[in-house]
Order: sequence, then structure tokens, then C-alpha cells
Amino acid sequence: MASPYPSYEYFLVTTPIPNVAHVQINRPQKMNSFHEAMWLELKIVFDTLSISQDVRAIVFSGAGDRAFTTGLDVQAASQEGVLKQQEGAADVARVAVGIKRFVQGFQDCVSSIEKCEKPVICVLHGYSFGLAIDLSTCADIRICTSDVKLAVKEVDIGLAADIGTLTRLPKIVGNFSWVKDVSLTARLFGAEEAYRVGFVSQVLENKDKAIEAALKMGELLASKSPVAVQSTKELLNHARDHTVASSLRYTGVWNSAAIQTEDVQKAMLSGIKKTKPTYSKL
Amino acid sequence: MASPYPSYEYFLVTTPIPNVAHVQINRPQKMNSFHEAMWLELKIVFDTLSISQDVRAIVFSGAGDRAFTTGLDVQAASQEGVLKQQEGAADVARVAVGIKRFVQGFQDCVSSIEKCEKPVICVLHGYSFGLAIDLSTCADIRICTSDVKLAVKEVDIGLAADIGTLTRLPKIVGNFSWVKDVSLTARLFGAEEAYRVGFVSQVLENKDKAIEAALKMGELLASKSPVAVQSTKELLNHARDHTVASSLRYTGVWNSAAIQTEDVQKAMLSGIKKTKPTYSKL
Amino acid sequence: MASPYPSYEYFLVTTPIPNVAHVQINRPQKMNSFHEAMWLELKIVFDTLSISQDVRAIVFSGAGDRAFTTGLDVQAASQEGVLKQQEGAADVARVAVGIKRFVQGFQDCVSSIEKCEKPVICVLHGYSFGLAIDLSTCADIRICTSDVKLAVKEVDIGLAADIGTLTRLPKIVGNFSWVKDVSLTARLFGAEEAYRVGFVSQVLENKDKAIEAALKMGELLASKSPVAVQSTKELLNHARDHTVASSLRYTGVWNSAAIQTEDVQKAMLSGIKKTKPTYSKL
Amino acid sequence: MASPYPSYEYFLVTTPIPNVAHVQINRPQKMNSFHEAMWLELKIVFDTLSISQDVRAIVFSGAGDRAFTTGLDVQAASQEGVLKQQEGAADVARVAVGIKRFVQGFQDCVSSIEKCEKPVICVLHGYSFGLAIDLSTCADIRICTSDVKLAVKEVDIGLAADIGTLTRLPKIVGNFSWVKDVSLTARLFGAEEAYRVGFVSQVLENKDKAIEAALKMGELLASKSPVAVQSTKELLNHARDHTVASSLRYTGVWNSAAIQTEDVQKAMLSGIKKTKPTYSKL
Amino acid sequence: MASPYPSYEYFLVTTPIPNVAHVQINRPQKMNSFHEAMWLELKIVFDTLSISQDVRAIVFSGAGDRAFTTGLDVQAASQEGVLKQQEGAADVARVAVGIKRFVQGFQDCVSSIEKCEKPVICVLHGYSFGLAIDLSTCADIRICTSDVKLAVKEVDIGLAADIGTLTRLPKIVGNFSWVKDVSLTARLFGAEEAYRVGFVSQVLENKDKAIEAALKMGELLASKSPVAVQSTKELLNHARDHTVASSLRYTGVWNSAAIQTEDVQKAMLSGIKKTKPTYSKL
Amino acid sequence: MASPYPSYEYFLVTTPIPNVAHVQINRPQKMNSFHEAMWLELKIVFDTLSISQDVRAIVFSGAGDRAFTTGLDVQAASQEGVLKQQEGAADVARVAVGIKRFVQGFQDCVSSIEKCEKPVICVLHGYSFGLAIDLSTCADIRICTSDVKLAVKEVDIGLAADIGTLTRLPKIVGNFSWVKDVSLTARLFGAEEAYRVGFVSQVLENKDKAIEAALKMGELLASKSPVAVQSTKELLNHARDHTVASSLRYTGVWNSAAIQTEDVQKAMLSGIKKTKPTYSKL
Repeated sequence: MASPYPSYEYFLVTTPIPNVAHVQINRPQKMNSFHEAMWLELKIVFDTLSISQDVRAIVFSGAGDRAFTTGLDVQAASQEGVLKQQEGAADVARVAVGIKRFVQGFQDCVSSIEKCEKPVICVLHGYSFGLAIDLSTCADIRICTSDVKLAVKEVDIGLAADIGTLTRLPKIVGNFSWVKDVSLTARLFGAEEAYRVGFVSQVLENKDKAIEAALKMGELLASKSPVAVQSTKELLNHARDHTVASSLRYTGVWNSAAIQTEDVQKAMLSGIKKTKPTYSKL
Repeated sequence: MASPYPSYEYFLVTTPIPNVAHVQINRPQKMNSFHEAMWLELKIVFDTLSISQDVRAIVFSGAGDRAFTTGLDVQAASQEGVLKQQEGAADVARVAVGIKRFVQGFQDCVSSIEKCEKPVICVLHGYSFGLAIDLSTCADIRICTSDVKLAVKEVDIGLAADIGTLTRLPKIVGNFSWVKDVSLTARLFGAEEAYRVGFVSQVLENKDKAIEAALKMGELLASKSPVAVQSTKELLNHARDHTVASSLRYTGVWNSAAIQTEDVQKAMLSGIKKTKPTYSKL
Repeated sequence: MASPYPSYEYFLVTTPIPNVAHVQINRPQKMNSFHEAMWLELKIVFDTLSISQDVRAIVFSGAGDRAFTTGLDVQAASQEGVLKQQEGAADVARVAVGIKRFVQGFQDCVSSIEKCEKPVICVLHGYSFGLAIDLSTCADIRICTSDVKLAVKEVDIGLAADIGTLTRLPKIVGNFSWVKDVSLTARLFGAEEAYRVGFVSQVLENKDKAIEAALKMGELLASKSPVAVQSTKELLNHARDHTVASSLRYTGVWNSAAIQTEDVQKAMLSGIKKTKPTYSKL
Repeated sequence: MASPYPSYEYFLVTTPIPNVAHVQINRPQKMNSFHEAMWLELKIVFDTLSISQDVRAIVFSGAGDRAFTTGLDVQAASQEGVLKQQEGAADVARVAVGIKRFVQGFQDCVSSIEKCEKPVICVLHGYSFGLAIDLSTCADIRICTSDVKLAVKEVDIGLAADIGTLTRLPKIVGNFSWVKDVSLTARLFGAEEAYRVGFVSQVLENKDKAIEAALKMGELLASKSPVAVQSTKELLNHARDHTVASSLRYTGVWNSAAIQTEDVQKAMLSGIKKTKPTYSKL
Repeated sequence: MASPYPSYEYFLVTTPIPNVAHVQINRPQKMNSFHEAMWLELKIVFDTLSISQDVRAIVFSGAGDRAFTTGLDVQAASQEGVLKQQEGAADVARVAVGIKRFVQGFQDCVSSIEKCEKPVICVLHGYSFGLAIDLSTCADIRICTSDVKLAVKEVDIGLAADIGTLTRLPKIVGNFSWVKDVSLTARLFGAEEAYRVGFVSQVLENKDKAIEAALKMGELLASKSPVAVQSTKELLNHARDHTVASSLRYTGVWNSAAIQTEDVQKAMLSGIKKTKPTYSKL
Repeated sequence: MASPYPSYEYFLVTTPIPNVAHVQINRPQKMNSFHEAMWLELKIVFDTLSISQDVRAIVFSGAGDRAFTTGLDVQAASQEGVLKQQEGAADVARVAVGIKRFVQGFQDCVSSIEKCEKPVICVLHGYSFGLAIDLSTCADIRICTSDVKLAVKEVDIGLAADIGTLTRLPKIVGNFSWVKDVSLTARLFGAEEAYRVGFVSQVLENKDKAIEAALKMGELLASKSPVAVQSTKELLNHARDHTVASSLRYTGVWNSAAIQTEDVQKAMLSGIKKTKPTYSKL
């Protein structure tokens, strides 16, 4: 099926199933490693999908067999952005301001996956290092292949991971001892361990099977009321960052509009009639 | 043993073991499904137990073999409350206010389980859909039968779960990928999965065994200092919603009164003498 | 190797591996149980290590084979501190102020492990009751022996645990049903269970193997950039207590100085050259 | 005009102007001082007005000329509630639980003014001590007479004000030095001072003029879109307790339903046509 | 002096004093009222100034004598954006999503003033209604002319102000009674009142004088260390939204880079030598 | 009256009135300017007074007529601490860690005034620059002399104030425009302005009168129930940093012990009998 999306330079966006977009990081020859132009484009991709009325679920993976992404393209990074910026700079405080802006800009791009109103299923496969973890912690559901090689790699290049991993990992995996172990040691971990601690919720045999499973899950989500699905994503993300009392209040207000949807009637009716409901675009 | 509690219309409250109350949702012919009068009564039940001096632990289950509860009684719901309210209403904003009040009132009733000062052990068995999850996330300890059928069902009726599941589930299960999976897909999950991800902390063979285990745990809790037990519940719930610094401060203030209890002396003495302590009512 | 640290009365601090300190609670004849002078000294130990430039990782265990610690030395406690303070005191509010000060002082000492800038690996072995849990929840990584006997014991002496367990346990283990089970019942739990729910991230056959594994992990951490390692600890702890937005902002500011370190260049260079980098003290 | 409200024992509720309710504390012979039955009734009064479709604004004052309220009826208080409860009670911790429940119940009643969905204009006049301040800090707008005698009186009876003053006063008056001065010294302060620091926003010559001004303001509020007015109250109260980012998010969701009201069209049209709009009930 | 800034359609950006930008809303023929294209451009203006190295302070006013801005151009608004969007839309929930996106987009544009790294001095003059208040609450310093006409006008068009006023006003003015008075009544208030309650910190005779005073203050800020000035803005904004403990921690980290600036030496030296320091760009 | 306090090197602590301590910064020959040894001692002074049973209120001023304090002793500062630390340091990140530790240590010392359990009345007189503001924002009540010269001076030495002013000033003065004005411009402001915006709550003619007024207020506070006074300080400070719901909860728990004091009976009785109550030490 032809994609209604523009051609991106570093991402391949297709619609293999109606209402389900498949986003692939598309630089396989470089193990899908990232440089600045790529995360700027990433934001455009997800901001666009967030409000595309034909999209109800998104599958996110890397192109090629070898890697979801190996993270930052260190070679490119040293030519641009934050690392380059430092050379010859006279004043520590001024360099710091440059770095802060750079990091916040980078964070904003990655956060676009989390802010995307449609649910995002991330398929981790092959090498999935550094930025791979940052990106995947922004997704809603993480699944992986049995041979995935995962690592919070940043400590090994003298850095604390600052694009989101250290902020989000403790909030998506309830095993702080393990979170600190992998974040401090930068060691490799595999599918079995990721599944056991709850970093991923499903492990598939290989990439084909994983993509297939993700698309099938996407198809399932796309068959349901988009009002219900997108509200659920929003309310779960709100709960993560607020007290119970505050989120219950927000939920009541959210649903005061959302429940007025025709989807409730459609869903109930089709439940009784055992038919498949058709929901309007959102 | 005769119950000292009033007769409720939709709940059966007994005291099978001294100081341990057993609350059963008592509408088995309708799979213990809920309508408005029921959750209003639920709040009375738990508000009463919260301050009943003869109660030190509560077991919460459904009457009958088939279901803890299948959730909202959709038929009844369409005759009353929020769904009925909408018909013929002219103004979206005014309808929204009505819905918000309704949802907040409903939330308040369900939250009475969490606010109950005595520990609540919830036994999930049979069909446990929708509201079953909302209710159980308010309980302190969740155990289930091996054949339980669990589902965050709301998406399938065009809704985001707004009575507490989306707010509390991410705070009681540390596997955000799984939380989103079951909340977005509304799919069934069973005992093994619930245990693996930490939604329940024990699985029993069948309902009888589960009730027995819950009562036994209730009996154990009832044998301990009620000051210690009820303080522990309160402090754990406080911790969930505050920073470490704020909860440490609250804990110090809480215990500045609680530690002055005679229970500490009694507990220590009976520890040395190897006797069973008797604690005053609370 | 001789220790550069002062001789402590209740703790043994050695440096078995360069840059890796080993702190042992050193009162094995009393099962390493604690009285007030001990936690005051504990704070001195960890405050000192926190800023010792020769230390990059810390292993924390109990001396002797029988216990990490059995918790409060109840006999000593009844002679001093909070319990003694109460006798003969006339006014509840004034006693309460005394207790509050005492508890906060005690909390501060225990929190020194969490505030220590260097990563702390806690080895739980033998009897590990009450205060053992408070202490270990402040550590970064928890590992244990296969025969460890763990218990949140406070309820059994008529108390709610107020030195940190109830505050931190819900934030380090994502299974609130289990957290409440063990906190309310004060029951024993072992290595298998601790590993399954994520309280520890590794189980070793016996104490020797566990210390060996911890030291090896310490050695690994000590081989990495101390700027990266210590930043990672700080940012993960910040994330636990703040919203995603707030922690991303903090992270950007933190790294605006940290990334200017020479360690990044050293790490990258040694990555390319396949050499072992040598980082300056911190 | 006859009141559509039930006869209350301690409150006089009238409707002097269409859609504007006037609530008077009605125990002038005792300077409108409070005992437990009164604050329980207070909650019923405001909960009822909160959802009464004929009410769009509320004026709150004391009956009689001498006092808004002198606060707790100490004589009555010593016969009931918390102070009575203590006598003969054996265990400090158990008494503490009783006090905590009592205080929280009392707080809930007073907070009903804040939770009331309709704006509340509080007229402080004559003696306005202790509970008078707690009550007025829950109101939206405070005005007073020139001869009002105000005091945060609790310190003078050996208490810290626990029904809301210490919680809300720092959030409604931006002069922490003054807030602490009057709260710690329990000293009298008058209209001029209250106006200067921003505790009240208007001072009127005497009680008649103040009631007149309050009713006129109530009439003005009642003439405006109830959707707009009630939304504004809710959003301002939300802002007080949340970060800017969190309140902006809540505001967007709130208005996603509220802006769909017909009141916007009516308001705009009447703005153009220079007519007086008529809004539906809410 | 020629402006180095691009020509904007709706804003006039000049540099009347070195390093001080003057931004004027430039639609005087329509009382500087706003439509969507204008707030989109506003964001570009402030995002650009935020990182322009030649700008150290910004003065923000309206072009022409009659108004800072009268707020939303209601006529234009009814042709576009949120109000237009609703017509013919079938489903309340889907309309709500559209409104939410619209409001959040609008909020983002207005918030760009707050996020601008350089201090912004807002001059309120003439008619300053509705959006005028939203915009000015994002500025750092507010001054006004003696004849300014201010109003939180939204209630009068059937709306709760949702672009920032209700969120920020309670945080910048410490008089909650007054904040609610002007927000609920939508009444006019003038310079004297705005000054008395602390909404503005200076009142000038007329617009010329006010612009002159603002530019002079801008010149003063521009003469100081940009590291110090921009850090101060950031830290004050952080304090508004965090606890004291959290902001002290953030401040320490912020200054760990900022204090390494050469500006400290320059400032100190020039203090001793009584010379005027020259600081590098930022 | 002879002071029961140890002789301090940089502070003079006396007891001019029973139970009222007077703390003077005692380096008048250097305008009471601060170096590191002084703030370390400051913490000892206030930590000691915090738990001294004979102290119920504290007056804080500078010795001599010329200054409360002119802030940091820049000359001394350049010989020690953070500024000295930097010289010759090779690595920005390592210097940053040193600065962060230094700033946090400094903050901790200043915060001891806020954490002091007894109310602190700060008398600002003469030159009161920089650190003077940091110190005074930690006090409970601020009064000043008519000729006081106040300034948030840090910007003028190339710094953002990081010892507490930027964190606390927005929380004690409800005029954000003014807070930013004085913090960004570093300009002088006097007594009249400080009083008008609510930075101080009283202005006295000269230092003698101001000290007299402060001591008199201290005497008044010392005559009241120390349980009530110290509880009030604690609860107001808690309210500043928590939501209304969270502070109401904390207040209930706090008073569950505090209300059990004998002081309530004493206060009530002496109220009836018109006698002066005598309260036990605290």
C-alpha cells in the first residue's frame, strides 16, 4: 500500500495495514546510528503522525537486520553539535549554555514519541544501544526479538545518558536495583532479562515475527475506538507524573468531554449485536 | 459467627474470624455487576469498617463462583447516571459538568477502599473485568485464583477507564509496557501473567483456597498491633504520592504519636516471653 | 591492602581493590545489630567516602557469617534514645517532639548511604531484618546470598518502620501488593522471592561468592569515568522524585557542566584505540 | 423572596437576588460560635448550593451585628469531640487516631466552601476569630467592614490552627512575614491592615454596606455565563496547587469541553447587539 | 539604529539601545488585536531573541497609542481556529480533541515569552484586555502607564481564560481575593490598583515615559553579566514551580557551571577598579 | 543577663529577656561580612538554639550600627572556598562537582535558620546586601529600620544568588514583577518599598527601636504555649511547599500528638481565670 506520507530522508514511513503506520529508522548501512539532522526529522515524523487522522497506531523499528539503532553516530557527533561547539570556547558558563540548549533540543525531539497522541509500539532488535533505550522508553509498548542486544551505553563514553533514559527508565521498570545496575555498568543485557524485569512485555523469535506481532497489535488497537485508545494513553502518562488525587481529578475532566463521544454507543451496540464497529477518524 | 454489621442490600459483610471482616459483592445472579446504588453502598460499607473497632483486617471478594465482578451493569447504566443524563441535553459544557460530577462521585466511592484505615486483601476470582480492576487497585494486597479472567475492559466500550485503574495501575505494577498493553488492548489476562508482572502477589488453586488464604492472612494481620499495621498502610500509601524527603518528614511526625503506644512494650515483652500479645482495640 | 581510612569503632572500612571501598558493619558477636552510636558512626563513614577522591564504588556488607544485621539492638535501644526518653515524661506533645527529633536524626544517618555520591552495592546475607531493609533500600544495587533471611520486621515490635523502608520500598520495587504483604505481615522472605519481585538484582550461592561478585562489580564501576558514573547515580535518584519534565530539565543543566569533562574524549579515544582509559580522581 | 432551601438549624439560607444565595451563620446569641453539629451542617449547606441549578453566586456572612463568628464554642467543644474524647483514654496512639479522624472530618466540612462549584464572597464583620479565618480562606473573595476585628486566635488556646488557616493563608496572601506575625502572635488586626496586605480585597463602611456590596458583586457574577464563571474558579484553584506546565495542560483539557458551550455564542452576540444575554442553568 | 532582525508581518523588532531589543505588537489599526498567524509569529520572534547573542534584554509593548492589545480579534477568530472548527462537527469528543490541540498550540506560543532566556520588560498601556494579561504574566517585569485600562476579559465572552492568565496570575500576585475578583467579574482595573496589589511594579505618566523607563531598565540589565542576569531569570522561574529543597538543589547544579564564568572575575575587578566591565556575548 | 550559651567567635548570643535569645553577627569592623568559618558557625548557633529548652523565640541582627551584613567578604572569599578551588583545576566537570558541594554546604548552613524549631525575628538595619537577603528570607518575621539599605547584590558580582534568595524570595513576597526587578537589577531598595511589597512587615525608626520591637515580639511569643508556637511555624513552612490537600493531611497528623498537650488545658483555664499561664519547657 502506498504511503500517504512525505518522503523522509532518514525515516521510512509506510502503512502496511489500514490506520497503522510503520516508522523505520532508515540508515541501515550505519546501523541506524543518529546524527542531529535525524532527530530533528524524527520529531517531524512523530508530530505529523500524532495528528494524522488516518493513523491510529504506530509501529517503530529500525530498517535492516542488524540494529534498531546503535545510538549516536559518534563520528558525526564529533563534527557537529555539542562536542564540536566546545572547541576553542573561552568561557565555561557560555559553553554550558550552549550544551544545555543542545541537550534540551535533543530531548524535545525524542520526547515527540511520548507526546504523540497515537500509541507507539517499539520493536527492539539487533543492536539497540544508548539512544535506542532513550527512544524506546518514550514508546508505549516495548517488544523485542530473542537475539536483541540492549545496553544503556552512555557511561562507556564518559557521559550520563541525558536524552531521557535516566529520567524514564525508573518510571517504566519497577526494579531500581536492576535499573541502576544496567545504567551504571553499561553492560549488555538480552531479551530474557529485559522480559523478566519488565522492560519489554513480549519477546519474539526474530525480527520478522516481532514486526508481525507489533503490526497485529497495531491492527487490534486501530480496530478500537480512537477516542478510548488515545484517552487511555494520555491518562496513563498523566498518572505517571502526578499524585493519585490529581490524576483522578484530571481523569474526570478529561472524560467529561470524551464520554460524550458517539463511540460509546457504537461500541455498546456492536457488543450486543456482535458486529464490528466503525469509528470516525480522530 | 453472627455479623455485628447492618444488613446491606448489595454486600454481605461477615466476621468469619475474630477481627477479620469478609466483604462480598452480593449480586451473583448478575455476575456481581455494578449499578449506582451499589457503589454508593460500597462506600458506606468501607467507611463503616474503617472506623469499626472490632475490625483489624478485611477480605474482599465476590459472592458466588462465577465472578468477582464483571464490572458495570451496562443495562442498568444506560437507565441511569451518566449515560442517561446525556439524552436531550442541549449544551455540551453543561453535560460535561454533569459527567464530571458523576465520575468524581463514583471515584470517591471506589476510593473508600483505599482510604479505609484497615488493610484490605482482595481476592480476584472468575470474571474480573473493568470495575473489578478499579476496585482491586484500591486494595492493599491482591491475590487471585488460577482460573481468574482479568481485563481492563473499558476501551471495548469506547471509554478510557476513569474510576481509578488508569491512575493506580502504573503505581502498583512496575512494568509500564505491560500496563499499557493490557489497558490499550483490553485483552484478557490470567493468573500466571498477573503474578509474573506483580499485579497479584499470590495465586491459589481455586476460590475456596483463595478465600482461605486471604482469611488466614487477615487473621495474621489481626493478631498484630493495630497501631503498627494501620500506620504501615498509611505510610506506604503516603510514600506512593510524595517525594522521599516529604514522606520521611511525614513518617517522623506520624510516629511521634504512634510510637507512644503501649503496643510497643506489649510486643517486645511478648517477644521475650514468647507469649501472644493482646492489643487494645483501634 | 592497608586502608587509608580511620579506624572506626563499629565499621570496618577496607580497600580490597583500588578505588573500591568495602564497608562492613562490624559487631558480629551481636549479629551486627545497631544502637545509636552505630548509626551516628555510619553517617561519618559514608559522608567521608562520599568525598574521598580515591573511592569510586562501595561494597556494603555485614562482618561475620550470620547476619548483615538483625536490626535494632532492642536491649540497647531500651536503655537509650527514644524508648528511654519516654519514661516519666509528663506531656504527650513534648514527648512527641523528642521522638520526632530522634527519628529524623536516625533517618538522616541512614540516608547518608543514599546521599553518598559514589555508587553503593549492598550485599544482603544471613539475617537481614528491620534496619537491614532500611539500609539496603538506600543502596543503589542490592544483591544477596541464596540463604538470606529477609524481613520488614517492625510491625512485630509494634511499630511502623520509620527509618526509610516504608518510604523507599514502594519506589524501588514495582509490586505494591508484595510490598504491602511483606510490610504488613512482617513475614520472612528469601532470595528467590526477593529476586523475582525485583528487590535484589542478583543472587549468589553464598557470602564469599556474593562479596566477590560485588567487589567485581565495584571494580568494573571504578574502571569507568567517575564523572559519568556519579552523574548517573544522581540523575536516577532525581528522576525517582520528580516529574519527567522536571528531571529532563535538571538533566540538561547537570550535563551542561558534566559533559565538558575530559573524560568524554578519553573514553572515546580509548574506545577507538581499544585501550583502557585512565580517569582523574573525583 | 422565599427561599427554596430547606430550613437549617444553624444557617439561614436566602435568595435576596435571583440566583444569588445568602448564607448566614445563624447563632447570633452565641456570637455565631461553632460546635460540631454546626460544621456538619455547614457542609450540607455548601454541598447543596454547589449543585443547585438556581444558584450562581453565594454571599457568606454571620447573622447579627456583633460577629461573623468568634470561632470554636469552647464550652461546647469541651463537652464533645476531640477534647472530650481524650479523657480517660489509656493509649496515646489510640487517642491520636481519634484526634486525626476528628480533625480530618472537621477539615472536610470547612473545605466544602472551597469545593463549592459556585463562587463564594465572604463578608467578614465584627468579631472574626479563629475558625472565621479558616472559613474565609476557603472563600473566593473576602471583603470586610471597617470595624472588623480579625485574629488567628488558635495559639492563644495552646493550639496550632489545624482546620485550614495555616495551610491556606500563605497561599492567599503574598506576605509571609505578615502571615507568620499574625499566626504566631494571635494578635488582633483590623480592616486597614487586612486590605493593605491583601487578605481582603475591599473594605466597606459597615455591615449593611458590606452585605450590599457583596450581593451586588454576586448579582454581577450571576449575570455572566455560569460556564465561564465556574470554570474560572476551578482553574484558579487548580493553579494554586500545581506547576505552570501542569495547570496549562489541565486548562486545555477543561476548556475542550467548556468552550463547546452555547454561552460563547450568546456572549459574543449580546456583545455585538449590546443586549443582556440569558444563560441556561448550571 | 537598524535592526538586525528579519521583517516580521505583525511585530516590529528594533534595537534602540545596544543589546536591548524592542518588540512591538504591530497592528495598531486593529488595536493590536490577535489572530492565529500573529501568535505563531510571536513565538518565532521570542524564540529568535532567546538565542540571539546580541540581545541581553527585551522591552515588549504595543505599537500606537491606543492599546497594548485588546486581546483576541473576535471577528478573525470566528473565521478560523477553534470556533470555526466546531461548525458541523458531529462528535463532541472529536471536537474536544481539536480544541485541546488548538489551545495547547496557542499556549505554547504565548509561553515562548516566559521561556525566552533574556529578561522581558512588558509595558502595558492603553487598552490591555484578555490576551494582554496572558502575555504580560509571561513577562518578567510589568510596568504600565497611568491611564492603562486592564481587564481579564474572558468571562465576558463566555470563556475561562485558558492561554495562561488563570495559571500564572495567582503565582505572580499574592492577593488571591483580588485575583479572583478581577478574573470572575472581568471588570476594568487601572494603574493604581495594579500597582497596589503588585501586578505591576512601576507606573509611568504616559506611554513615552513608560517606554523610556523600560528601555533604561533594559539598558541597565544589558550592562550586567549576561550569565548572572539570565541565570537569575531561570532560577526565579524554577523556584515558582518547585519546593524549596528542590530549587536549592537545582540552583547548586546550575551554578556549578555558571560560576566558572570569567564574568565573576571581570565583575569583581571592575568593582575594585571602578570601571565598567565588558562581558562576552551569550 | 549572663548568656548560658558558649562563646562563639563570630556571633554574640545573649538572653536579654527570659526565653528570648538574641543572635548578633559579630564582625562589625568588617560590616559583618561573611567568610566560610562564619557560616559554619552560624549553623552551630541555630542548631543549638533549635533544641535549647530555654529558648522560645530568637531575634537576629547584626552587631554595630552600620550593617546587618554587607554579604560575602569578597576578599576572604577569593582566598578560600569555591573561588580559590578553581585555580589550576584541569577539568570543568571536576571543578563543577567541587562548586556544587561548596554551594550545597553553604546553603545547608543558611537553611539552619529556617529549620530552627523556634521562631526567628530578623532585624534588617544599615547595609543589608546579598547574603543579608538570603539569611533574612529564612527567618520567620522580617522587620527593618527606616534607613535600611537593601539589595539582592549578586548579579553585580557576575553571579546568580545561590544561597537561597532566588529560591525563597518568590515564596515570601507575592509580587513577582518586583522580585524580578530587584533580583535582576541588583538595585538598592529601602524600608518604605520593602514594607509596601511585603518583604518586611514592620518598619521602625532606628536600630534601637527595631531591636526593642523585635525583643518585645519575642517576649510575646515566649509567653505563649511553645507547643502552639512551634507547631504553627512548622505547619506554615510545610504549607509553602505542598498542596492544600497534602498540608491538611500533614496538619491532622501533626496535631494528633500536639493537641494532647497539657498546654491546651492551661491556656483555656488561664483564659477563663484571666491569669498568665506557665508552660513547660520544650
